[in-house]
Amino acid sequence: MVSPNLVKSLQAIIGEENVFTSEADRQCYSYDSAVLKATVPALVLRPTTTEQIGPIVKLCYDAGLAITVRGAGSNLSGGTVPDTTDSVVIATNGLQKIIEINEEDLYAVVEPGVVTAQFAKAVEAKGLFYPPDPGSMSVSTLAGNICENAGGLRGLKYGVTKDYVMGLEFYDYEGNLIKTGSRTVKCVTGFNLAGLMVASEGTMGVISKAILKLVPPPRASKALMAEFSDIADASEAVAKMIAAHVVPCTLELLDQNSLKYVEADQHIGLPVDAAAMLLIEVDGHPGQVADDAAIVEDVLKKCRARAVHVARDAAEKNKIWAARRNALPALARARPTCVLEDATVPRSQIPAMIRSLNEIAAKYKVEMGTFGHAGDGNLHPTILCDRRDAEEFARVEAAVDEIFDVALSLGGTLSGEHGIGTAKSKWVEKETTPGTILFSERMRRAVDPKGLFNARKITGYSHE
Amino acid sequence: MVSPNLVKSLQAIIGEENVFTSEADRQCYSYDSAVLKATVPALVLRPTTTEQIGPIVKLCYDAGLAITVRGAGSNLSGGTVPDTTDSVVIATNGLQKIIEINEEDLYAVVEPGVVTAQFAKAVEAKGLFYPPDPGSMSVSTLAGNICENAGGLRGLKYGVTKDYVMGLEFYDYEGNLIKTGSRTVKCVTGFNLAGLMVASEGTMGVISKAILKLVPPPRASKALMAEFSDIADASEAVAKMIAAHVVPCTLELLDQNSLKYVEADQHIGLPVDAAAMLLIEVDGHPGQVADDAAIVEDVLKKCRARAVHVARDAAEKNKIWAARRNALPALARARPTCVLEDATVPRSQIPAMIRSLNEIAAKYKVEMGTFGHAGDGNLHPTILCDRRDAEEFARVEAAVDEIFDVALSLGGTLSGEHGIGTAKSKWVEKETTPGTILFSERMRRAVDPKGLFNARKITGYSHE
Repeated sequence: MVSPNLVKSLQAIIGEENVFTSEADRQCYSYDSAVLKATVPALVLRPTTTEQIGPIVKLCYDAGLAITVRGAGSNLSGGTVPDTTDSVVIATNGLQKIIEINEEDLYAVVEPGVVTAQFAKAVEAKGLFYPPDPGSMSVSTLAGNICENAGGLRGLKYGVTKDYVMGLEFYDYEGNLIKTGSRTVKCVTGFNLAGLMVASEGTMGVISKAILKLVPPPRASKALMAEFSDIADASEAVAKMIAAHVVPCTLELLDQNSLKYVEADQHIGLPVDAAAMLLIEVDGHPGQVADDAAIVEDVLKKCRARAVHVARDAAEKNKIWAARRNALPALARARPTCVLEDATVPRSQIPAMIRSLNEIAAKYKVEMGTFGHAGDGNLHPTILCDRRDAEEFARVEAAVDEIFDVALSLGGTLSGEHGIGTAKSKWVEKETTPGTILFSERMRRAVDPKGLFNARKITGYSHE
Repeated sequence: MVSPNLVKSLQAIIGEENVFTSEADRQCYSYDSAVLKATVPALVLRPTTTEQIGPIVKLCYDAGLAITVRGAGSNLSGGTVPDTTDSVVIATNGLQKIIEINEEDLYAVVEPGVVTAQFAKAVEAKGLFYPPDPGSMSVSTLAGNICENAGGLRGLKYGVTKDYVMGLEFYDYEGNLIKTGSRTVKCVTGFNLAGLMVASEGTMGVISKAILKLVPPPRASKALMAEFSDIADASEAVAKMIAAHVVPCTLELLDQNSLKYVEADQHIGLPVDAAAMLLIEVDGHPGQVADDAAIVEDVLKKCRARAVHVARDAAEKNKIWAARRNALPALARARPTCVLEDATVPRSQIPAMIRSLNEIAAKYKVEMGTFGHAGDGNLHPTILCDRRDAEEFARVEAAVDEIFDVALSLGGTLSGEHGIGTAKSKWVEKETTPGTILFSERMRRAVDPKGLFNARKITGYSHE
């Protein structure tokens, strides 16, 4: 329970205006973008300097309150849903400073609540490039991206968020400051705690600063779109491009259902009679772009693409790319509930995965659209349904379970980029081992002895 | 103490021929490549299947024996020196299988004891590329590279070992198997324990398998060498190349002392009257290589290089590169003791770092040669001395302390790629915070309650 004294102490640290106790305010912090039950927290705190984080974490922890940190709440697995109604939510939207963009040494230092797209824009303005581009980037925050190890469209060539975290500062449950990593490209001083914080979903401590790696931007790029009459041909093309040693910066797939929903929603002239569409972008040196694009075009034709279109300019590319970026919102608008999965397989297994997804949709009579990052085997089978229809939702859940089984049997993983949260925690042991759960729980208890840091997330938490 | 019963149980698991008890055998496992006191272990074990690791670790741990895992013993900070004479060393040279090289999905699965250079060669034979190239790669092992997060010459463009670890399997102190990561490019299932194992120097568990990322090889490359009359000009050139958005795959510096020692040792016609030499290699698409090489040449000339030479072919390049690869052995042969440091600074601080190194060498009257990975700020100031000369060695230690102070004051780190081990553990808190040490120790105790996994390494280990 939150005592009036605790509220006063917290107000003294972050100011009265940054402690939210009203029901209406707290409601806004009760959910995230996963299809899960909301839990209204007891208190919401909005620090406005990173130094305030330590003392407020310590006060809440000492009082035995569960703590969930929230960036934009855009994550898709429950990581920002409070564990209990006795929880405190720490909102990071008061911590949005870009502290430094270092053009000589190619790094930036940021506060946790900086919005990813705004950061990418600021970096671009300095002539540099921050590649991670999760679908949520227009609202999601950098520390949220780090805690979920967010991926995005450019993962295949440029990697994911974890590949750009050079260093972190965070506070532990006692309010101690931890520093890990460096402003240098190479650093092996101490444990790789920055690596551990990545994908830790708020279970280890509260991030206060991040040092992020930047790279020079590609000098040129070219975008291609291809339509297929058979989705198997599209997935074959994906494997053949990689086999030809072309690593596109984007290699996205939309199946027929996704195309239909996006077209119905957006009216941009998508080929709704195609079985699948591939969106490919190659980037780099102009010479490489020309060579790669030629190889890609050749592969597409050999794999029986019924049409290949090269974007004339950035405007045309952006129009088509918007179709991909809008796939999720378009699908989400079609029915009351949208269950978005991200089971991921080695890319050579995409043809097998696509076949299985179609079989599963038929078997459980669910409406499914599949789109996603074909290049890294990270598909997003998306089931449209109505959660209030218990019979239908039971079929949806059975279908999702089977999707996971298939992904694992193909050498894949439960989650490529959406995180485990509470949505998939029961599945982790199946992918790993009992020892993995035990090791993780031991580590968690060591740095969160009371089980107050998002204890229900990832592996679950047990007091031995 | 090692009981006869324990020895019998271990022999039953890995075979009599793989349990080494003789003094002569054990001596070979008492040291590594750091300048540190040797400690002869009580027992050396050589598992020949990865499945043997769990049971032998459990037996030794239950018996209260300290455990140090050893690949090639080539590390430079004491990570493979046993903690006590009651230690068991687990040698991984019986585990050298490359289990899979997957050309479609661009990964490999390996046993821990595979030698890095042999792996790189096997990957190359399949038309792919494993970039990490630590100086020790002809002898060092992949799991050793992972536990130290080994760097190398290509770090600037291609990253370090951690950037190529997609997944790991390892055994904990109870012999439980832990699986982390995946064969997929994206994976956020469970904690990033693979990230935590990287650079953990044998303190968390014993690696039994690794899934490593591979990339398509660059299509072309070009090597340049430049001589400078002033080392400040050379370091300015380094900064200017990066500022021009050229990211060479190699960007190495040798100062005059290094040049002299290598030439005396190798007789390959190095310019011993130059103040410094830069070795630069650009790679990628042929068009990019041509453009980048032209920019590099221009920068070198503008920064007053007294000579710039473009290697005509691979043979000529390899001859000059051998000079760099032989810098350490050449320096090491000059005097009885060779103290190799790897304090690292943001690359824009290299001019300041070089100035300070020269001042420190003069102040403490020590003989120092400096070479290293200028592109990522990772220099290797190397002090030549005789450890048996107490007066001289005291000056060496004072000089090293001051090198660390300067690196930290320039926003750098204690160790870019050699690890902390016992050699630098007293310094970790100075770079980080007391909270960082506390957090690390809590984590360690959780997964190594008796303090038997290389307990003296990195942060030290205390029983609360």
